[in-house]
Amino acid sequence: MRVGVFTPLLSQLPLDEVLKKLKTKGIDTVELATGNYPGDAHCPVAMLDDAAALDAFRRKLADHGFSISALSCHGNPLHPDAEHARRDAEVNRKTIELAARLGVPVVVDFSGCPGDSPAAKYPNWVTCPWPPDFLEILKWQWDEVVAPYWTQRAAFAAAHGVRIAIEMHPGFVVYSPETLLRLRSIAGPALGCNLDPSHMFWQGIDPIAAIPLLGDSIFHVHAKDTQIYPRNLPLTGVLDTKPYTDERRRAWIFRACGYGHGAEWWSEFISTLRMYGYDYVLSIEHEDSLMSPEEGLTKAADFLNAIVLREPPAAPWWV
Amino acid sequence: MRVGVFTPLLSQLPLDEVLKKLKTKGIDTVELATGNYPGDAHCPVAMLDDAAALDAFRRKLADHGFSISALSCHGNPLHPDAEHARRDAEVNRKTIELAARLGVPVVVDFSGCPGDSPAAKYPNWVTCPWPPDFLEILKWQWDEVVAPYWTQRAAFAAAHGVRIAIEMHPGFVVYSPETLLRLRSIAGPALGCNLDPSHMFWQGIDPIAAIPLLGDSIFHVHAKDTQIYPRNLPLTGVLDTKPYTDERRRAWIFRACGYGHGAEWWSEFISTLRMYGYDYVLSIEHEDSLMSPEEGLTKAADFLNAIVLREPPAAPWWV
Amino acid sequence: MRVGVFTPLLSQLPLDEVLKKLKTKGIDTVELATGNYPGDAHCPVAMLDDAAALDAFRRKLADHGFSISALSCHGNPLHPDAEHARRDAEVNRKTIELAARLGVPVVVDFSGCPGDSPAAKYPNWVTCPWPPDFLEILKWQWDEVVAPYWTQRAAFAAAHGVRIAIEMHPGFVVYSPETLLRLRSIAGPALGCNLDPSHMFWQGIDPIAAIPLLGDSIFHVHAKDTQIYPRNLPLTGVLDTKPYTDERRRAWIFRACGYGHGAEWWSEFISTLRMYGYDYVLSIEHEDSLMSPEEGLTKAADFLNAIVLREPPAAPWWV
Amino acid sequence: MRVGVFTPLLSQLPLDEVLKKLKTKGIDTVELATGNYPGDAHCPVAMLDDAAALDAFRRKLADHGFSISALSCHGNPLHPDAEHARRDAEVNRKTIELAARLGVPVVVDFSGCPGDSPAAKYPNWVTCPWPPDFLEILKWQWDEVVAPYWTQRAAFAAAHGVRIAIEMHPGFVVYSPETLLRLRSIAGPALGCNLDPSHMFWQGIDPIAAIPLLGDSIFHVHAKDTQIYPRNLPLTGVLDTKPYTDERRRAWIFRACGYGHGAEWWSEFISTLRMYGYDYVLSIEHEDSLMSPEEGLTKAADFLNAIVLREPPAAPWWV
Amino acid sequence: MRVGVFTPLLSQLPLDEVLKKLKTKGIDTVELATGNYPGDAHCPVAMLDDAAALDAFRRKLADHGFSISALSCHGNPLHPDAEHARRDAEVNRKTIELAARLGVPVVVDFSGCPGDSPAAKYPNWVTCPWPPDFLEILKWQWDEVVAPYWTQRAAFAAAHGVRIAIEMHPGFVVYSPETLLRLRSIAGPALGCNLDPSHMFWQGIDPIAAIPLLGDSIFHVHAKDTQIYPRNLPLTGVLDTKPYTDERRRAWIFRACGYGHGAEWWSEFISTLRMYGYDYVLSIEHEDSLMSPEEGLTKAADFLNAIVLREPPAAPWWV
Amino acid sequence: MRVGVFTPLLSQLPLDEVLKKLKTKGIDTVELATGNYPGDAHCPVAMLDDAAALDAFRRKLADHGFSISALSCHGNPLHPDAEHARRDAEVNRKTIELAARLGVPVVVDFSGCPGDSPAAKYPNWVTCPWPPDFLEILKWQWDEVVAPYWTQRAAFAAAHGVRIAIEMHPGFVVYSPETLLRLRSIAGPALGCNLDPSHMFWQGIDPIAAIPLLGDSIFHVHAKDTQIYPRNLPLTGVLDTKPYTDERRRAWIFRACGYGHGAEWWSEFISTLRMYGYDYVLSIEHEDSLMSPEEGLTKAADFLNAIVLREPPAAPWWV
Repeated sequence: MRVGVFTPLLSQLPLDEVLKKLKTKGIDTVELATGNYPGDAHCPVAMLDDAAALDAFRRKLADHGFSISALSCHGNPLHPDAEHARRDAEVNRKTIELAARLGVPVVVDFSGCPGDSPAAKYPNWVTCPWPPDFLEILKWQWDEVVAPYWTQRAAFAAAHGVRIAIEMHPGFVVYSPETLLRLRSIAGPALGCNLDPSHMFWQGIDPIAAIPLLGDSIFHVHAKDTQIYPRNLPLTGVLDTKPYTDERRRAWIFRACGYGHGAEWWSEFISTLRMYGYDYVLSIEHEDSLMSPEEGLTKAADFLNAIVLREPPAAPWWV
Repeated sequence: MRVGVFTPLLSQLPLDEVLKKLKTKGIDTVELATGNYPGDAHCPVAMLDDAAALDAFRRKLADHGFSISALSCHGNPLHPDAEHARRDAEVNRKTIELAARLGVPVVVDFSGCPGDSPAAKYPNWVTCPWPPDFLEILKWQWDEVVAPYWTQRAAFAAAHGVRIAIEMHPGFVVYSPETLLRLRSIAGPALGCNLDPSHMFWQGIDPIAAIPLLGDSIFHVHAKDTQIYPRNLPLTGVLDTKPYTDERRRAWIFRACGYGHGAEWWSEFISTLRMYGYDYVLSIEHEDSLMSPEEGLTKAADFLNAIVLREPPAAPWWV
Repeated sequence: MRVGVFTPLLSQLPLDEVLKKLKTKGIDTVELATGNYPGDAHCPVAMLDDAAALDAFRRKLADHGFSISALSCHGNPLHPDAEHARRDAEVNRKTIELAARLGVPVVVDFSGCPGDSPAAKYPNWVTCPWPPDFLEILKWQWDEVVAPYWTQRAAFAAAHGVRIAIEMHPGFVVYSPETLLRLRSIAGPALGCNLDPSHMFWQGIDPIAAIPLLGDSIFHVHAKDTQIYPRNLPLTGVLDTKPYTDERRRAWIFRACGYGHGAEWWSEFISTLRMYGYDYVLSIEHEDSLMSPEEGLTKAADFLNAIVLREPPAAPWWV
Repeated sequence: MRVGVFTPLLSQLPLDEVLKKLKTKGIDTVELATGNYPGDAHCPVAMLDDAAALDAFRRKLADHGFSISALSCHGNPLHPDAEHARRDAEVNRKTIELAARLGVPVVVDFSGCPGDSPAAKYPNWVTCPWPPDFLEILKWQWDEVVAPYWTQRAAFAAAHGVRIAIEMHPGFVVYSPETLLRLRSIAGPALGCNLDPSHMFWQGIDPIAAIPLLGDSIFHVHAKDTQIYPRNLPLTGVLDTKPYTDERRRAWIFRACGYGHGAEWWSEFISTLRMYGYDYVLSIEHEDSLMSPEEGLTKAADFLNAIVLREPPAAPWWV
Repeated sequence: MRVGVFTPLLSQLPLDEVLKKLKTKGIDTVELATGNYPGDAHCPVAMLDDAAALDAFRRKLADHGFSISALSCHGNPLHPDAEHARRDAEVNRKTIELAARLGVPVVVDFSGCPGDSPAAKYPNWVTCPWPPDFLEILKWQWDEVVAPYWTQRAAFAAAHGVRIAIEMHPGFVVYSPETLLRLRSIAGPALGCNLDPSHMFWQGIDPIAAIPLLGDSIFHVHAKDTQIYPRNLPLTGVLDTKPYTDERRRAWIFRACGYGHGAEWWSEFISTLRMYGYDYVLSIEHEDSLMSPEEGLTKAADFLNAIVLREPPAAPWWV
Repeated sequence: MRVGVFTPLLSQLPLDEVLKKLKTKGIDTVELATGNYPGDAHCPVAMLDDAAALDAFRRKLADHGFSISALSCHGNPLHPDAEHARRDAEVNRKTIELAARLGVPVVVDFSGCPGDSPAAKYPNWVTCPWPPDFLEILKWQWDEVVAPYWTQRAAFAAAHGVRIAIEMHPGFVVYSPETLLRLRSIAGPALGCNLDPSHMFWQGIDPIAAIPLLGDSIFHVHAKDTQIYPRNLPLTGVLDTKPYTDERRRAWIFRACGYGHGAEWWSEFISTLRMYGYDYVLSIEHEDSLMSPEEGLTKAADFLNAIVLREPPAAPWWV
């Protein structure tokens, strides 16, 4: 297992500056964004049509001794706005092709969220079973939109030798192990998840306990933390719609690793990932509004590098 | 304070049978449904136009020695389906008039939930702030639909000497103390809440801790409990859209009082209500799929009657 | 579901006195011991050969309006002492026959515990996997003694229309859900368990959490409680070999229901049993050295009668 | 063990009304106040000099079938105000004589609290070891005031066949098991404690855990509860000097039994008392400002009567 | 935010040795004591009258690249011993003047504690509201002594451009957020607090939860930890008057940061300080009797330097 | 106090390679195995008869600047197999002699475990008091086997100036503080314990809480951790006989320090050892099947070196 970095937090720097900086922090793996919500500062899909750019890109990574853990294009390819959906789906398609071209085994995306019907204006994220409206919405979304799109797309990825890691994320139909496993049972084994613990905590899901359930569907892992504020729960509960920057009043915010849960938690998280067969990358994502990106990145890298399990275990001689 | 019963669980019985049965369980207060989701088996608003019926109704209650704590018409008066909205709003309006006529001080309702726009088909219940679609929906819902309706309706109730108790309930825009207080700050002091603890627990809201925040906005209280199943949380989280009858797999279900939280919790809940000025009715609602209505009602009534604080406190002589 | 009593605590009384006394405590179901550790004061297997006695026995129960939930002959049919083993196995065999004759659906027994080899003097209860001696003992016990005996015996019971409920109990090879399910996978579905929560707590097994794992293998349930004393754990740990009467120094002792875990725990235990299909008897066993049998029985009966779910649930109309 | 009542909460009623009322609540033991803080409504020490009154008093109790568990004269016999001290000490002395005359085995009192020196105006209750002033005060208080008074007084009580139960209480030098045992080691075995759990909780002392430490120094027990309010701790901490009636803002207040800690806690408290040799009286004291005295008394009596262990345990036959 | 050191733990070294040593531990900020309880080894107020000394002092700090976070003169300016009070108050006055001269923005002191009346010999620290003596003491202390002194002194500080940070400390009238805010409401915004979490824990005050309540009244922060020993609480409770060196029997002792609460706690403490506007100095104070000062200082500096947030946060681009 | 290493995890390397490697990890103390379960790769007892080898051995340690904390020969000298017992006892005897020769103060061993009688084949580890067989076994084991052997052996060690540290370990008669103190009370003060916290956790023994009870009987300490898996407890409980490599299904496994309990726990463990007089060595033992020995050793050494208390505490000047 090793520590990597998802680079949008350094979008203002050119890629080689990013790689140089990360090297000093003991990092040599990156997850690169190819468009949609996280932008494409370091890895535009346009390289697909520009052999020279692609070649230069490959060389830059090789020169700095870096590998790519995943290409990521978090979007909403099922958005009720047809143009929005088309654009995001197109980036997804090209990202799969680019991953195949670069030998990157994983493409990360959101599942997307449709509206309440073909005529909808906005996504309709269903989180309760009553009144009956909600189960009707859910049935339509899965049967008519979610299942067809991802079945086709997972086949496309499989055909390219790439696996799709859906980030379980609030606001999209796949937001929990249960919804992920439902989609995987529909779309097949080329579709699994990007496990970002920061989206699990406030739903009452202990990411450590989720690992045995997700098993070999874990294709990629984000290293981001969440702090829940019990002092604000009696007013707000976990269903908090206030902006992430309203830290004093929010029920929870995102934090750098170690600032939401301590080393004891992360050590068990890492150990449990290994125990259930995941021995790949912990990709640091920075969305901690109480820390500068630079300091957040440094803290998270130091924190994780001290506890990550790098070597494969040996046969136990003592049993 | 005293224990009452919300009677839809006995809809199959005529009102006087209901009253006779409740008397044997030490109950002499009822909350009656006047339509919308809970039906109107015991108190149809049509009585407004039927002086004889109304008179008979009044006499029946008096004969059995019962009072009415609230009239309840839980609906979705803001449903994107215009006819649905109109119908539910109409029942609400008549319920206010009926309450005024009967001297019932409180009318209970849901806040309702609009869709994503005037063209929506279903309600769109927003529970997260990102992607930005969700805050746009929320802004439109509150500015264009929620605020106008309830401002007008609260004024109407105030003019009739009646207070509106919005039941904070998932699936509707008012689902937490924060959203309730937001609506109250818009619609004024004639609008407060019906505090049903069963909807708070799984949101991470301790109803006891919510009482000091809600203060004198608590107009009515439902006595219903919730059991959370930690064994199912790692898969599902609290955002569980499976039907309430899928008890083995759900993250939480409704229970009769005492079967989700014990006497210690309910004693403090009752004591805290009194401490912050609420000394009215605990109205038992039965939605426990593991118990028959009859047994659920008996258990809840016995449980609450043993701990409710009936007498006003005396001046403390020992301080 | 209903509350019953395992009657050895009243061995000094004749059966009809027992039944009279229990009636006054709201009990009309008994579990009767037929020999081995609990004796056979109220139900000797010799009745098998005495038609008149059997008839009188049947009439006595009918006259008092009592049913029998199980016949119980807790012994060690696998004891290394051959005579001990033979005697206990014989009682078990006759108990099965008697149950068949009386229409009692369940026979309760321990799994027994062999020694370390055919030459052993005492049972050897294995609770750790190292040094390797222990796994060698375990392999021999299961392969050579446990499996053959119970495979044969379960078939015998099945042939008599009776089910065998093994009480998971320390000191015997079946002491936990895991060991019970192992034996059931060998001996077949006529062998299940008598779930006595008092033996689970100190092993770190939450009986509530064990119910979904045991599922339909739960044939009978004992209502006995355990109090763990954290103050004594640092010295002793849970592996306490001091006599049960050394209450001040023991790590844990048995208690009457409600004196080890409160109503909240027992309510969830009962509810979870029902949720997973067990809706039969909670049979009170008294082994509380801080209470007289009479008072312990009264406390337990009152406690459980207040929370047991007697009526079958109705179809939920509110979902 | 049995449930009794400390009667000042009914001071407005004459003694026989008190006894009649208590009888209806299943109580036949009283603790009577003889002066100082709790007054002397039902048992004035003046009876010592009035044989007729004493006789009538004795007869009244006998007629109603009541026994007296203790005579109580909670005062500050060490108050820096000499007249205050003299008066309270005098009541104590006469209470001991009266107890001897009535055959009441226990006299309850506070330890008292001196000032900072002979010239002090008010008691100086020391609760921290630094700055050094505090240990100097403490040394003077114990050496010059506390030890001499109680050594003498314990001898006086012993000579009268009476035991002194010091109620460990904040504001007085004996406020914890440690300070009680210190005084007992000085004054001898005729001095022990009245264990009132309500004064222990907020000091971080679990009364159950204190029982093994106090052992046979427990002469009498008060049944009063405390509720701690975690919501107020961050502002105030447990050292709260606000009046007891400022319930909304206080860190903790006194409650009727069951309203601060549930049946599970009280059952273990009672069981642990028995386990360590205390099998006497649980004397209900009412200081719950959220309940009327009448309702508080009824709730506490019903609550304790359901769980108190009345019968002596029998020899365990099952071990 | 940055880590500093309160230097009395190195009193045996001259100031430049202190600064050299601290530099090696990644520290360049000091809090210096100017007299009263902590002595004045490194910063005597006599420098006020010795321009050369003051100049040399300034140069020494500048040469080593150090800044001063606060001047501290923890004393009891309200001590009933008039000479003690005068002397401590005088040091406070001069410390304010010296801070003004040196451009140090904060002066730390205790609030002090008067006696029970003008005739008292020792401080009388009130921590309970009953018997009524205590509220009478408290009223006199605040009205006659505390309020006049600090109102005048805060004005004096404000006039010098200096803020007074009262360390909330047991044994003095300001010992909790509530008492601090009371004094601040009297003396005005130039008076705030020095938040030393080690004095809060054992009072049941979570320092993290206190931060939102204290808000912008936090002028300075001490980095010291407390370990509570649950094993000793049943005997002693938190009101422990035994000397700090009686570690085995005390209910709690002071510890170096990280040895009472781990990195998870301190990370949240630091984050919450920043969230509520405090971004200044964490000043290490050593009073850990289980560690040498040198080792305690090193451990605390390494521990805090790894988690302190040095850079200001950037605008979040991801929301 | 300092960090050492128990070297069997590096058995494949010659001793000087081991010492070189450990030096790079900040270690200069070793615990060496002399036979029985852990082998004797680095310190064969045959050296006793080979002066040249012994001399070379001594020089090697001196050259690398290493000291030996203990010689360890974990075996079962009471095994029912006579040859096994003789061999293990013989190694123990020679280890004591070798320790004396090398000036090593401590010899570590297991207590051993007899069978059920002289005719037994395997050890019989008793962990429950009922049925009565178990107390009969226990009586025979202690009276006839355990007491005689260890009384003699402790005298032998004392005569050689060596102390015997029994590692409290499941599967042997001494497995808990209680059983250790029992043996010590029989065999005398030359016999104490090797405290390995990893064997305590799953028994419900908090090793920190055990320290005050063990007091000066702690001769040596192993630094090994345990992770308990609550997700597997409902099925298995803590009495888990599955092999240590069945990590996914086991109730608990051994871990490197910091991966079972975090820095907060280990800091208090270390501090409590010092508080109760143990200031010697924390000897790292590696049995973590999720980590390679190399990585496990590095992680544990880094983890413990950051928190161990190396310097003796100084006199506290601040009290």
